[in-house]
Amino acid sequence: MKTQIDTLMQEHRIDALLVTGSAIHNPAMVYLTGGGHITSADLVKPRHQQAILFCGPMERDEAAKSGLSVRLYSDYPLKPLLEQAGQDYTRALAMRYRQMLSDLGLNRGRVALYGQVEIGPIFGILKELSNLLPEIEWVGFARDPILMPAMMTKEPQEIERIRHMAQITTEVVGRTADFLAHHRVENEVLIRPDGKPLTVGDVKSRINLWLSELGAENPEGTIFAIGRDAGVPHSSGNPADLIRLGKTIVFDIFPCEAGGGYYYDFTRTWSLGYASDEALELYRQVQNTYDTIVSELTLNTPFSHYQQRTCQLFEQLGHPTIQSDPQTQEGYVHSVGHGLGLRIHEMPFSGAVAGDQDELVPGVVFTIEPGLYYPSRDMGFRIEDTYVACENGTFERLADYPYDFVLPMRT
Amino acid sequence: MKTQIDTLMQEHRIDALLVTGSAIHNPAMVYLTGGGHITSADLVKPRHQQAILFCGPMERDEAAKSGLSVRLYSDYPLKPLLEQAGQDYTRALAMRYRQMLSDLGLNRGRVALYGQVEIGPIFGILKELSNLLPEIEWVGFARDPILMPAMMTKEPQEIERIRHMAQITTEVVGRTADFLAHHRVENEVLIRPDGKPLTVGDVKSRINLWLSELGAENPEGTIFAIGRDAGVPHSSGNPADLIRLGKTIVFDIFPCEAGGGYYYDFTRTWSLGYASDEALELYRQVQNTYDTIVSELTLNTPFSHYQQRTCQLFEQLGHPTIQSDPQTQEGYVHSVGHGLGLRIHEMPFSGAVAGDQDELVPGVVFTIEPGLYYPSRDMGFRIEDTYVACENGTFERLADYPYDFVLPMRT
Repeated sequence: MKTQIDTLMQEHRIDALLVTGSAIHNPAMVYLTGGGHITSADLVKPRHQQAILFCGPMERDEAAKSGLSVRLYSDYPLKPLLEQAGQDYTRALAMRYRQMLSDLGLNRGRVALYGQVEIGPIFGILKELSNLLPEIEWVGFARDPILMPAMMTKEPQEIERIRHMAQITTEVVGRTADFLAHHRVENEVLIRPDGKPLTVGDVKSRINLWLSELGAENPEGTIFAIGRDAGVPHSSGNPADLIRLGKTIVFDIFPCEAGGGYYYDFTRTWSLGYASDEALELYRQVQNTYDTIVSELTLNTPFSHYQQRTCQLFEQLGHPTIQSDPQTQEGYVHSVGHGLGLRIHEMPFSGAVAGDQDELVPGVVFTIEPGLYYPSRDMGFRIEDTYVACENGTFERLADYPYDFVLPMRT
Repeated sequence: MKTQIDTLMQEHRIDALLVTGSAIHNPAMVYLTGGGHITSADLVKPRHQQAILFCGPMERDEAAKSGLSVRLYSDYPLKPLLEQAGQDYTRALAMRYRQMLSDLGLNRGRVALYGQVEIGPIFGILKELSNLLPEIEWVGFARDPILMPAMMTKEPQEIERIRHMAQITTEVVGRTADFLAHHRVENEVLIRPDGKPLTVGDVKSRINLWLSELGAENPEGTIFAIGRDAGVPHSSGNPADLIRLGKTIVFDIFPCEAGGGYYYDFTRTWSLGYASDEALELYRQVQNTYDTIVSELTLNTPFSHYQQRTCQLFEQLGHPTIQSDPQTQEGYVHSVGHGLGLRIHEMPFSGAVAGDQDELVPGVVFTIEPGLYYPSRDMGFRIEDTYVACENGTFERLADYPYDFVLPMRT
């Protein structure tokens, strides 16, 4: 929660945060400003002080909606700085940052860097700025110990926004199931009303349309992978593929609020019309593993515990896992879940990168998503729902949706 | 064009490019890989050699579609590196980069950085990597002299993709005009069939729906700003605002291909039902200025020439401009246009940041968008189309759309 930020800054000896970039699809900036149509900004958050937001004069009204103190770049005109810098644009921008930071009394100390931006410009500017403000130490974390842990524990209004995305997501999944089931079939292939075969691309277009209609967007795309592609966990599915009966379909959908807000993450695996005995058995194993893991969730447990447990369960069933063979591309090949919020993947993590803080503490929103992958047998399986850890020790699934594997055709 | 990259690298003494991040909404990565559902990758492009793409094993199939040589992170396991690094994740990732770069024979020289990423992790890693590979100089450009100029001149297939986005965009603008005109009016306010007033938010939802249906997405949102908001160039419009007759509406729409591909950029200003004499006159001035600038376009001219010319034309009409008063927030307050492609704003630029290379050379795709803004009078005006500079010296508008200001209601 935001109230943790100052304490975490102190703990890690950070005197200020510098967040840069747009307020659209830029999680740290959205978190601290509330979002809005600000295409370019710098936010400075000194420890134990309110954040200050710098932006262009054309975006002052949007910036004011953040409720933060707003300052304009136009008060730091670039033209004289470019002259002083011999028209070196990188150096002139560094000089402007020096002015902005100095006006906030920020001339020394450790400043942590945030923002989803083009690396080139900011890297060049910081190199120059290190000469201009040598007493500032710029800090970048591969695993952020300040905003990431703060963002990991959601406030009630954040959970409400994710719950709303959960409703939109499962509504779209239901529409997709209906849409598929009402197609006519020729030679095991779904056929559109115009007589052409239905493709994965057609299904994805329809999904995007429904998401948009319901106020969501889909910046990271959708996984709708059939047959061999279903066996490659992050294959998004080939748009030209046809939809065939009896093939496993991994449908993993992870939209966010329009404008780059909170995400939801959800997966079902389907087989249209019928399924082979082998597929039915593997699906049953994934579903049992999912049910076992969910039933064992306990507050304040390290999330990585459930990754080890998932590997153990699948290994007992005879499957290779990344625990038994880190290089395996068959069996169970990913982690059992991840936190989500303004990012599709955020703390807590359960896999190789999980650390001490990746625990299922109250307020954490996370996925549970065991799966089995056999591309050599043209099949893959995953079940995923998103949960919130509640104060009272229960875990609430943020939306209900049936776990049927074989979807009967209704035509 | 891509064929310029090696020459530009040589000219700026760059031995390799390192592009990092996703292949979704990450222009440099999309340009060099062709896009695809790769959520995390590193691309290394040594001078005069083919690029190499590193990615996770789960994304190997998507990465292979790039046609580039693909290597897997799993061949550089993190676990022993974390042990060597005392579980310091930033340092372990830096050690992995050293291995990856060393395998390509890249131990020295100047490496330029690219990629739309979280600044914190990569900055921290590069700080560590500077100790591990001290003979590599990392370079970041605030104005990139390599990929940006290469991307500025489009190949025919890039222009075709932008032209396709032009058709989608103007189709959606036409549907929006029809949709508005067919609403019933009560007390000067547009009323929905269910009896509630139509809002800016309703119109934007409809726009997103149509864009999605036509295969586009809208990551940066749409400006649909009415009244005073129309007078603030980058106000995106308040979703709760009602649509009133006789108020100026600035409708600026800039969608891209689904998945983060090529953009289009387009603006019209409308007044529903009627307009005041003052608004009619200001619109006429913007349209005349637009027509004059377009008629004066000449191949190989600095784009900034047309910015000066636009300021001159508006000043002759008695308006303040950012040339006469850099702080003005009324009159003409932005630049006359910008290049576009995989970014909504790219070279050539026409405003304060324009440099020697920002010229209207063949293959350049750019906007022309003069405007006038008077928030104190509750009005603003902008006309924008996107053009391509052709080899034969002509300038082709990538889509036609009428310039009507007053849209008659059809109910």
